[in-house]
Amino acid sequence: MINFQTSPEHYRHWNLKIDGPVATLSMDVQEDETIAEGYKLKLNSYDLGVDIELADIIQRLRFEHPDVRVVVITSLKPRIFCAGANIYMLGSSSHAFKVNFCKFTNETRCAIEDDSRHSGRRYLAALNGTASGGGYELAVACDEIYLVDDGNSAVSLPEVPLLGVLPGTGGLTRLVDKRKVRRDRADVFSTVAEGLKGKRAKEWGLVDDYFPTSKFQESLEARVRELLAATANLETTEKGIKLSQLDVENTPQGREYQQVSLQLHRDQRYADLVIKGPEAGLPTEPDAIKQLGDRYWPLQAYRELDDALLHLRVNEPEIGLICIQTKGDIKNVLAVDQTLANHRDHWLIREIILNMARVLRRLDLTAKSFFALVTPGSCFAGNLLELVLASDRSYMLDSEDEEVQMAVGELNRGALPMANGLTRLQSRFLATPEMVEEVLQQDARFDTSAAERAGLVTFAPDDLDWDDEIRLAIEERTSLSPDALTGMEASLRFAGPETMDTKIFGRLTAWQNWIFQRPNAVGATGALTNYGKPTQAQFDFKRT
Amino acid sequence: MINFQTSPEHYRHWNLKIDGPVATLSMDVQEDETIAEGYKLKLNSYDLGVDIELADIIQRLRFEHPDVRVVVITSLKPRIFCAGANIYMLGSSSHAFKVNFCKFTNETRCAIEDDSRHSGRRYLAALNGTASGGGYELAVACDEIYLVDDGNSAVSLPEVPLLGVLPGTGGLTRLVDKRKVRRDRADVFSTVAEGLKGKRAKEWGLVDDYFPTSKFQESLEARVRELLAATANLETTEKGIKLSQLDVENTPQGREYQQVSLQLHRDQRYADLVIKGPEAGLPTEPDAIKQLGDRYWPLQAYRELDDALLHLRVNEPEIGLICIQTKGDIKNVLAVDQTLANHRDHWLIREIILNMARVLRRLDLTAKSFFALVTPGSCFAGNLLELVLASDRSYMLDSEDEEVQMAVGELNRGALPMANGLTRLQSRFLATPEMVEEVLQQDARFDTSAAERAGLVTFAPDDLDWDDEIRLAIEERTSLSPDALTGMEASLRFAGPETMDTKIFGRLTAWQNWIFQRPNAVGATGALTNYGKPTQAQFDFKRT
Repeated sequence: MINFQTSPEHYRHWNLKIDGPVATLSMDVQEDETIAEGYKLKLNSYDLGVDIELADIIQRLRFEHPDVRVVVITSLKPRIFCAGANIYMLGSSSHAFKVNFCKFTNETRCAIEDDSRHSGRRYLAALNGTASGGGYELAVACDEIYLVDDGNSAVSLPEVPLLGVLPGTGGLTRLVDKRKVRRDRADVFSTVAEGLKGKRAKEWGLVDDYFPTSKFQESLEARVRELLAATANLETTEKGIKLSQLDVENTPQGREYQQVSLQLHRDQRYADLVIKGPEAGLPTEPDAIKQLGDRYWPLQAYRELDDALLHLRVNEPEIGLICIQTKGDIKNVLAVDQTLANHRDHWLIREIILNMARVLRRLDLTAKSFFALVTPGSCFAGNLLELVLASDRSYMLDSEDEEVQMAVGELNRGALPMANGLTRLQSRFLATPEMVEEVLQQDARFDTSAAERAGLVTFAPDDLDWDDEIRLAIEERTSLSPDALTGMEASLRFAGPETMDTKIFGRLTAWQNWIFQRPNAVGATGALTNYGKPTQAQFDFKRT
Repeated sequence: MINFQTSPEHYRHWNLKIDGPVATLSMDVQEDETIAEGYKLKLNSYDLGVDIELADIIQRLRFEHPDVRVVVITSLKPRIFCAGANIYMLGSSSHAFKVNFCKFTNETRCAIEDDSRHSGRRYLAALNGTASGGGYELAVACDEIYLVDDGNSAVSLPEVPLLGVLPGTGGLTRLVDKRKVRRDRADVFSTVAEGLKGKRAKEWGLVDDYFPTSKFQESLEARVRELLAATANLETTEKGIKLSQLDVENTPQGREYQQVSLQLHRDQRYADLVIKGPEAGLPTEPDAIKQLGDRYWPLQAYRELDDALLHLRVNEPEIGLICIQTKGDIKNVLAVDQTLANHRDHWLIREIILNMARVLRRLDLTAKSFFALVTPGSCFAGNLLELVLASDRSYMLDSEDEEVQMAVGELNRGALPMANGLTRLQSRFLATPEMVEEVLQQDARFDTSAAERAGLVTFAPDDLDWDDEIRLAIEERTSLSPDALTGMEASLRFAGPETMDTKIFGRLTAWQNWIFQRPNAVGATGALTNYGKPTQAQFDFKRT
């Protein structure tokens, strides 16, 4: 079982040094410390274990080190920054694992950009040696890239010419969409295995600058000082909060967290995911919230939800459907929404909200079906209402005897955007945009018929039909082709505008997934299969 | 060899009746008239041959029947409008063929929307029976959809539940992006094999209205009258021009058209595609151009280019690289650009320009590499400059002795947009948008060094290096994995904004291609393989 939790005392591949407002994050991959058998992590190449640490570091920088304003990512290995994802790991992994590995590394790169965009931390890739493949893709996720000019070090995307696959972590999209490299130059760069060195790399926009070895350190330091001056308005002496390990118990049927419960029905290939709403009387001021730290419900519940989603993706591939439920008091959820909205400019509250948004986007991007089940005692309100809107379908009990309600809250107004930049209400009401404001302005709760009228739920079966209808819906869903569902959900979930993130997860990922099962990549004579072997790849040259 | 040319006297599957400003296009597929062996086209299901006719009809409506303002698409089969792409054809086709078949049908649907958007012709789907799968996707490409309410007829997308694949002709994207169907309803609709009938189909936005059988015809006629009134401003009594069969000679080495020459180097897996520029002294007024008809260079050359591209896609799968060249006088190309720009509001000139734009987009979407070779005697100017900008790379000879030039023209200013809505110059200069105007304002021609400075070419080898550099570039390109190149090019060619078209060709196509090779669809126990057999599909339920 792959564990997505880690903490600084367990890091094996990264060295994090914090010096006031500057964090230096150095990659120093231990080649034997792999997450699976059969390969060595040479030349700062990485597997999922290395990236789990990186994701953890970025998360902790945001919560534990609010005073850090510049993050320098570099390497402790001589002449090599990072060689990208380990090829032998890729070559020996199942299709499903490769796809989920790429998705997680993509989410981690997006988390760097999310930190830069929303929290103002500047990321600087200090390439003290060659950055190839995923190594260069990590650099491109940073705000600025500096390359040493030692006559040897280069940036490169050798996936197409060497491996017959695509750069799998957003590289192609970020080349032309983020760095806006001219498409013909991007074409050349992406087909030249050895990549480009300093002068031309700068001319083509692949790096921001290059410096000779003797001046590399001082030039970087000068740039860091400039960035510190430019981010002086973000200066804070506030200490952060500690992110503890999540308290989770694995049972044969699932996982029990403090606020999240995951019950697996493996025979039927679905899971119940139940989220407890917050208690009453949570603190309403940042100082008191800081005291609570990572036990504050919005942080704890969403961290647990995040871990549960990652667990489901990688460790429970046959679970195809998640039935999302909530238990609690709508009043308390709305109170939390109100508190968070009131203090959204406080650094900790901002980070808590941004984390909730990232977790919800992780859900949007999870290749499982989601049904939201709205029943008596549930608390789909405010931030938790997003779970209904994020689900592929929702069912709300229409009961004569019991109260079943939903409600909008402050965080439905734009604090938790999807990857396409829209709120989930905007995505839902593309045809009738006036409905967004109508729903948001409803102070009263939505009972089942009001929710149906407002277009907030898909179906509203009554007491008599509920059990059968839910059972049938689950049976039907889990009987369908899992691949067709993945492609269908990826197409239906993201209507409307596109962003770099949706391009990476929609277009690039889809092409990569296609190539990841082509014989030209993974067949007996495929390029990925034959990499590093005395044998040569033999292609079927038919263009598709 | 599949022939993409046809004409009304050869139609086997469609009946076109033109009554003044109203064209009625009725599908009446002849089940034995298939383009390949091994299946029958029952229930108005279609194969590539049926769609080649449809594409031809839409093209002819624009050029031959400018007076048509409303097109009603319906069926001559009782109780069935169209059952979509033939499943046995799909099940027995190669992966490459399936992909190219879907691409062509997608382009044909986009051509309907292009006609509606730019030429104002209104398309009305009159579903006199069930429209399922590609049948409903054809309807969704129309402006309006009307369904008969006979207690039986429905609209449906049964691909996911029945076949384990996606609707392959833009259906999912158009559901949520064009018709803006709520994503949870789109989810339900796309997983219910039998689809939805009149009332709910209308309520969910899947059709615009439904009428009982007894009122179907008169209701449609009433709607046609309304549309005619609304498009009265487009009324014309002008006759169209005739589109003749292209004059093409097949040789063992390629195809020779009048303006286009295709030379195949099959051993080296590349082709030279040479386009002759226009002669001097072409007419400058619409009346004289109309006299010339389809022999007018911009129409003839681009129709031939279109046919050559389709031929290359389907009949020459192993050709991976097209070297584009032009031969002619820049002055004459610019004169044509000027004439077209001067009269762009004349219906025929507008159609000629729109056709050029569609052909260039067909090139953008062709899964082959394109290198533009700019040499002495070439005429990459104005509309032909778009070929340089559309290419993955360009090489321009830097000669001391001979004149090598390029030039901008009127049609580079926005008349020939890419699928993403940008001009090719805008796409090229995303990083430096001020360059677009700078280039457009250059009256003088670009010699090689000016073109390089302006960022219009990738490389400019001199006389000494040219032959070797081109040879090496061709050898390198054609040695790479064709699949990785397809995915790479699809990612690099469309930076910047996204539209419904780019979503369909980028995201949806990529997912469909992925699914089209998954064992759950096409393996021995896959759903597509087992459709209509006594055996049942058996899925590997791992989610990816």
